[in-house]
Amino acid sequence: MSKGTVVLAYSGGLDTSCILVWLKEQGYDVIAYLANIGQDEDFEAARKKAESLGAKKIFIEDLRKEFVEDFIWPSVQANAVYEDRYLMGTAIARPCIARRQVEIARKEGAQFVSHGATGKGNDQIRFELTCYALYPEVKIIAPWRIPEFYNRFRGRKDLMEYAQKFGIPVPVTPKAPWSMDANLMHISQTIVLSISQAPPDLYLMTKNPADSPNEPDVLEMEFRNGVPIKVTNETNGISKNAPLEIFSYLNEIGGKHGVGRIDIVENRFIGMKSRGIYETPGGTILLKAHLDIETFTMDKEVRRIKQGLGIKFSELVYNGFWYSPECDFVRHCIAKSQENVEGKVQLSVFKGQVYILGRESPKSLYNEELVSMDVQGDYDPCDASGFIRINAVRLREHHRLQGFSGKKQ
Amino acid sequence: MSKGTVVLAYSGGLDTSCILVWLKEQGYDVIAYLANIGQDEDFEAARKKAESLGAKKIFIEDLRKEFVEDFIWPSVQANAVYEDRYLMGTAIARPCIARRQVEIARKEGAQFVSHGATGKGNDQIRFELTCYALYPEVKIIAPWRIPEFYNRFRGRKDLMEYAQKFGIPVPVTPKAPWSMDANLMHISQTIVLSISQAPPDLYLMTKNPADSPNEPDVLEMEFRNGVPIKVTNETNGISKNAPLEIFSYLNEIGGKHGVGRIDIVENRFIGMKSRGIYETPGGTILLKAHLDIETFTMDKEVRRIKQGLGIKFSELVYNGFWYSPECDFVRHCIAKSQENVEGKVQLSVFKGQVYILGRESPKSLYNEELVSMDVQGDYDPCDASGFIRINAVRLREHHRLQGFSGKKQ
Amino acid sequence: MSKGTVVLAYSGGLDTSCILVWLKEQGYDVIAYLANIGQDEDFEAARKKAESLGAKKIFIEDLRKEFVEDFIWPSVQANAVYEDRYLMGTAIARPCIARRQVEIARKEGAQFVSHGATGKGNDQIRFELTCYALYPEVKIIAPWRIPEFYNRFRGRKDLMEYAQKFGIPVPVTPKAPWSMDANLMHISQTIVLSISQAPPDLYLMTKNPADSPNEPDVLEMEFRNGVPIKVTNETNGISKNAPLEIFSYLNEIGGKHGVGRIDIVENRFIGMKSRGIYETPGGTILLKAHLDIETFTMDKEVRRIKQGLGIKFSELVYNGFWYSPECDFVRHCIAKSQENVEGKVQLSVFKGQVYILGRESPKSLYNEELVSMDVQGDYDPCDASGFIRINAVRLREHHRLQGFSGKKQ
Amino acid sequence: MSKGTVVLAYSGGLDTSCILVWLKEQGYDVIAYLANIGQDEDFEAARKKAESLGAKKIFIEDLRKEFVEDFIWPSVQANAVYEDRYLMGTAIARPCIARRQVEIARKEGAQFVSHGATGKGNDQIRFELTCYALYPEVKIIAPWRIPEFYNRFRGRKDLMEYAQKFGIPVPVTPKAPWSMDANLMHISQTIVLSISQAPPDLYLMTKNPADSPNEPDVLEMEFRNGVPIKVTNETNGISKNAPLEIFSYLNEIGGKHGVGRIDIVENRFIGMKSRGIYETPGGTILLKAHLDIETFTMDKEVRRIKQGLGIKFSELVYNGFWYSPECDFVRHCIAKSQENVEGKVQLSVFKGQVYILGRESPKSLYNEELVSMDVQGDYDPCDASGFIRINAVRLREHHRLQGFSGKKQ
Repeated sequence: MSKGTVVLAYSGGLDTSCILVWLKEQGYDVIAYLANIGQDEDFEAARKKAESLGAKKIFIEDLRKEFVEDFIWPSVQANAVYEDRYLMGTAIARPCIARRQVEIARKEGAQFVSHGATGKGNDQIRFELTCYALYPEVKIIAPWRIPEFYNRFRGRKDLMEYAQKFGIPVPVTPKAPWSMDANLMHISQTIVLSISQAPPDLYLMTKNPADSPNEPDVLEMEFRNGVPIKVTNETNGISKNAPLEIFSYLNEIGGKHGVGRIDIVENRFIGMKSRGIYETPGGTILLKAHLDIETFTMDKEVRRIKQGLGIKFSELVYNGFWYSPECDFVRHCIAKSQENVEGKVQLSVFKGQVYILGRESPKSLYNEELVSMDVQGDYDPCDASGFIRINAVRLREHHRLQGFSGKKQ
Repeated sequence: MSKGTVVLAYSGGLDTSCILVWLKEQGYDVIAYLANIGQDEDFEAARKKAESLGAKKIFIEDLRKEFVEDFIWPSVQANAVYEDRYLMGTAIARPCIARRQVEIARKEGAQFVSHGATGKGNDQIRFELTCYALYPEVKIIAPWRIPEFYNRFRGRKDLMEYAQKFGIPVPVTPKAPWSMDANLMHISQTIVLSISQAPPDLYLMTKNPADSPNEPDVLEMEFRNGVPIKVTNETNGISKNAPLEIFSYLNEIGGKHGVGRIDIVENRFIGMKSRGIYETPGGTILLKAHLDIETFTMDKEVRRIKQGLGIKFSELVYNGFWYSPECDFVRHCIAKSQENVEGKVQLSVFKGQVYILGRESPKSLYNEELVSMDVQGDYDPCDASGFIRINAVRLREHHRLQGFSGKKQ
Repeated sequence: MSKGTVVLAYSGGLDTSCILVWLKEQGYDVIAYLANIGQDEDFEAARKKAESLGAKKIFIEDLRKEFVEDFIWPSVQANAVYEDRYLMGTAIARPCIARRQVEIARKEGAQFVSHGATGKGNDQIRFELTCYALYPEVKIIAPWRIPEFYNRFRGRKDLMEYAQKFGIPVPVTPKAPWSMDANLMHISQTIVLSISQAPPDLYLMTKNPADSPNEPDVLEMEFRNGVPIKVTNETNGISKNAPLEIFSYLNEIGGKHGVGRIDIVENRFIGMKSRGIYETPGGTILLKAHLDIETFTMDKEVRRIKQGLGIKFSELVYNGFWYSPECDFVRHCIAKSQENVEGKVQLSVFKGQVYILGRESPKSLYNEELVSMDVQGDYDPCDASGFIRINAVRLREHHRLQGFSGKKQ
Repeated sequence: MSKGTVVLAYSGGLDTSCILVWLKEQGYDVIAYLANIGQDEDFEAARKKAESLGAKKIFIEDLRKEFVEDFIWPSVQANAVYEDRYLMGTAIARPCIARRQVEIARKEGAQFVSHGATGKGNDQIRFELTCYALYPEVKIIAPWRIPEFYNRFRGRKDLMEYAQKFGIPVPVTPKAPWSMDANLMHISQTIVLSISQAPPDLYLMTKNPADSPNEPDVLEMEFRNGVPIKVTNETNGISKNAPLEIFSYLNEIGGKHGVGRIDIVENRFIGMKSRGIYETPGGTILLKAHLDIETFTMDKEVRRIKQGLGIKFSELVYNGFWYSPECDFVRHCIAKSQENVEGKVQLSVFKGQVYILGRESPKSLYNEELVSMDVQGDYDPCDASGFIRINAVRLREHHRLQGFSGKKQ
């Protein structure tokens, strides 16, 4: 007699394979669900593995297109960066994966979903908040937070033994002392602080800038509504205009030139600091290009307000609230701000860097005559005197009352 | 009969030389004041020139140390960046220069100050708000906003003719079609948009990354109270620990590796967009290093609040409000936030990039045991279930009421 | 030979009557434009007066309906309050008046607009920014900032003499030592600080609470999309459902009970502090009712973001930026946030106060079962333990590192 | 054999009396701790009751003075209001109570603390975050979140039976269908929405405004550093200048005139909405008076930044983070902003309202000459033209590009 059906976010790796078997052991029917969001994976091998482990059904879903269009694009519009540095490749993938997981659970009549995320990380939160938001009645099985599970599997050795016992194929290579997450947007590796410097072979998605080409690639990125609609490599004429192809091509170019590597300590939602090594080649190019076209075409005061909303968006997404009323609201506002973010940015990608070379736009608010020092145009310099003096009213009053007299501060 | 004494911010160049003579022509006694804030200048030649033009007195003031300690350091603490990109090398120099100008004016009993900033830019505002804030009764003479002046000098040719007539030495090289500002922190060049790509010879402070060394310099930066107290080059053991020397050395290393070049369109305070090419080698290294040690040692919620204050600080400083009650207040708050920002950052400077390699701190909030996936420590994974479920209360209620059912958004 | 046509915002009072004549004296054709935004005015008398003074054309425009719908309603949605207290009855009227003035100017081919606002106040800015935003080529004549005008009219006596000379009817009552602005939303009076207490007869729109009825009026306000669609007086059954009628009725009830009087010092945009006495009876009732229904129906995190946008909106509007890209943007976002702000609020109006009695809504996020202490419902109290412990992770780490031990702070 | 010692926050009521006995039943030594924060309570009777129930030790602590000075005063400086309405009388009392509880626990060597707060409310969080922050190793026993406890005591009837069985004195009056919290600052009652209107006898701290005196009390409040240092009743000359006496007197006057009653729906930290009836007589007077003197003496741009910090402070305090690094930081910044908040406010308290009558300050930034319409002073009205035209640069550019032409929005 089954306890019910559970849709497991299955990766094909050791952990979720053990979880699959363990869930069956606990009396559940298990549907294995494997999302293709661009990670390097042999999906057919994973399917066979899940079958052999007794999954009742297997869903392998290609989510790459919707990952780019529904998750990466809004993040580009927002200039989404967490704590000034992290581009959140993992944080935006989780709601994408969980959204489909919930769809499958509903369709298959499963009351349970499960995942292999640990009990100390952000991903458990991102997965589960998405599930609760989209399927409030769902029951979530998070084995790494269930004492019977985590006390049984205290280390990798326990998993290996369990795998051998239940015929789960075990990886032949020893596991790196860090955990990895890979998708179309980035590869993330969580390493401990005491490893003083990230080993060079840790990087998988980007070339070492020291070994990258000595010639730049020069790209022209075209934007409309704040998202890229075309990228052209000016060096060789290659051009892409479908979202997934644009993003993949930016990954290719960024990866080739070693763009988007960072080693940071960040603050997890649950209040601990952790160290992450991230490679986000295409995302980094896009961030720089979008920032440029946005500042070029957007009114400065709109920009200030939108900058604040972008920071809010980043916090929400990092913390797992992609599907929340406030994130819906912020996304709506940000999208509104992007209506005139349109035009072309020329940039060069070289040795780990992205250099903006120029930009043009039919919606530009740049006015060469207005800004020129040689042409007066419809601008009276005398106005600036009044502007300054009025701005100084308050400062002069303040000085008068405080009675400070040029003393250094 | 003199109209009074004016302290002129004198650069030694054609514009302010003409202004010096013109002010005399108008009946003022002119004190020439030339601030050394690290620009490449022959100060003795400038002194002689000012003398020969009839300056009543000449002050050449070495402000480099106070520029670093009183202006660059607080900006480092703030992670001061305007519109996500510009490090404000010019914006923070202006109050430094004007502060001394006002001190001289007070000491010399001058009721007037003057400068050569144009009527369309930010610098006139930064100069004058500082003057009004510190010397409220001062009268400001801004020739480029006075019709008799700007109608007389409609272009460089008029200045050249005036110079020849009054024996002002004229530059032999033709002026570049852009205006430049240089100091210890950066070189800024304002070019028009229609120049599609900045010419390579425009860069003066940084090497072209393509021509920069093929070996990185690896530095260790030590911070206390959010400012650097020591930099050591791990490659050759060179070490600096006085503020001006630290900053100069970072400029040297950053310049050598082509760090800190940007080409941006920004929004001036007066509401027009302008294009600027900036080179900020040392400042860029410092920004990255400070961001790293700050995130490492600062509580995440303090960081969020401080991030907002830093953005506010940047707007205030860009707009010329360094000396204002609100900027005093924000600086005080930011300084308070830096009390534990202490420790060492290792970084590599290479081909235009700064790579953080690692960090350590006696004040670190990183807890390896807490974050470890293998050690449970004083952390119960089950707590995360409650945390997530409580966070989901609101999301589930929202769903229930909105009645949406997993539909894509 | 005319210098051109000017549309003058004409009030019928002494100042703008003198300005009308003075503009003619200067050689302009003058179109008198008088906006009816609910002030107590004999419009036909004003028309005759303008005619007699030589206005080329006269427009008397009833803007009350659009004032309520286009300006007051968005302010209600925003909970617009400047500096925590001022409901901005004047600030939102200015763009309404100037918008029509510009329409008339365009239609009549007038290149000039003029107004009688002083050179130290906010209103000049609000008028003119609206004019420039909607009619960028317009030329503005602000006599109180023109030396020939303000040097000629140094006090009320000069205006009276000028009036007598040019046959302008002069008011028989002496002018109060404060300036007044009245419209449908409020009456504002600017008085100097040294008048220690506002004289009782200064209030015109609201009864003294000491003399107000000893029985409350109990109202039910119905909202949709964050604006009132109906008000019903539960005491007598009177009901209104057109915007202008709703607002006028709230003014009547609020005025009868002495609601909405404040005496404040506020900060003008130009940086000086001024003292204002305001009466905003209907607006105050609406603010309280809207706050209540909004908090009742809006997600709490959306509310936080919207609160920030509302503060921004208030600053923009106070400073005269109603017609600006950023205010458009903020209004759009706020309107979006109001989609579910729907339901009924019961309130009592009594002796200067508004008491919320209750509320109901089909969109309420209040869940009696969820919040009940007696019913557990779909809520596990144990979850709260995890929630609290995870929230404490950071606090405990902080304590550990700071080493403080219960010492008082 | 004891399981250890627990310090129980004891109220003397039925719930915590049962908890005291139940904890003993579970094998703990119980120290009863009763904080006097101004609630109406017979503390000696409570002491005897606790003794009779077997408390090992009893601490009755008069915290009123520190509650005012350490908790209410900083909230006054912050203008602390949650969600625009709630003055947080309960939220600021919790850290005050828990701080002493932790001190006692440390002093008595108790590893446990306990409280009677429910599992759905904010107070459990406020108590426990304070405990964890100040005593990270503490173990918390929250019976209302322990299944053995809450399943045993499913309603008041179960508690009554338990009380009778264990000789706990039971209250003779039936419990109101709402829960109450009372202290020096306010009385809070949580009632359900379906009670359409709060019953009149629910209010305990304030008179019904309908029955309040027909004559106002006129007070003069004197502030220094943003906190009151003296209150004088101008009607009868009564004057107070010690913090606790000032606050108690404001409660008396506010209560007498029915000030500070609100009926709101608010958002709890855990994401549910709840309805509260609050009476905060003295706090409401103080908020209004402080707002007034603050705006009068503080620079407007400092005020804007401080307003944002005050909102942040309110959220933190409401959510239980009084003792957190970020709240420490925000409190420090706010205190800094109050250095010049000094002077006197005259106000009238009448029929539920507080009317500001006037204010004066040696630190005032109000300048009667500057603001006067009759005196020009050191202000050139022409400057305003330049100020406006520069502010319009951006708006006119925007219009030019958007090509809208006076069309209504």
